[in-house]
Amino acid sequence: MDRTKLLKFISKQKTAFIASVDGQGYPVIRAMLAPRKIDGNEIYFSTNTSSNKIKQFSANGKACVYFYKRGRFKYQGASIIGEMQVCTDRATKEEIWHFGDSLFYKQGVTDPDYCVLKFTGITAEYYCDFKIEKIEL
Amino acid sequence: MDRTKLLKFISKQKTAFIASVDGQGYPVIRAMLAPRKIDGNEIYFSTNTSSNKIKQFSANGKACVYFYKRGRFKYQGASIIGEMQVCTDRATKEEIWHFGDSLFYKQGVTDPDYCVLKFTGITAEYYCDFKIEKIEL
Repeated sequence: MDRTKLLKFISKQKTAFIASVDGQGYPVIRAMLAPRKIDGNEIYFSTNTSSNKIKQFSANGKACVYFYKRGRFKYQGASIIGEMQVCTDRATKEEIWHFGDSLFYKQGVTDPDYCVLKFTGITAEYYCDFKIEKIEL
Repeated sequence: MDRTKLLKFISKQKTAFIASVDGQGYPVIRAMLAPRKIDGNEIYFSTNTSSNKIKQFSANGKACVYFYKRGRFKYQGASIIGEMQVCTDRATKEEIWHFGDSLFYKQGVTDPDYCVLKFTGITAEYYCDFKIEKIEL
């Protein structure tokens, strides 16, 4: 497993798990839909500005993004540590916007409840068959 | 959703996700096999004493345990915040031990690389169809 293969693996998964750290220092996990964009070690998600994770990432950008695939005989997981940035600028929001998002954000791309989470990965741990590999991103 | 229904939901999932906080303050997610035991707000996992998560939980017990189910039209998730305790005492290890564990721990229940993670949940957030409910445990 190397950086290129890792990015290929994560680009195929339909669910991502992200963790923030709350005001009391507890980690908080949530499932997310697959990233909207993966550009090298930058991973973009769309989400609601009003959500708890936005409050937590605005106060503390330390984050983890996790992808996994559980087959019948093989389990693969990638846990990436990095920094999460809340993007509310129009350019980023437009880039990440999908047509179907209008269903959820009535005001369209400028809807104040629509925002983008931009994750910049630093290091990853890849797990497969009880072995762990560390990968710098 | 109430406490009883939440515990029923988590007891049916085959994968759990746990998060610790590392020495630099980053959350770290990993997938785990289903808990060995769920007793009210106490959730038990078996794992390797030599793993990174044991180092992290020994230094900082703040933890999150997450369960999710993604159906075709419905997504459910439960994110539980609480304290993780590393148990290496024989009584707890014996209680959680499964026969098949001998495959991985050659010395049996007293194998020093076999230990138990005991999670005590404090509060949970249950997600379903874009709605969130908070549940005290």
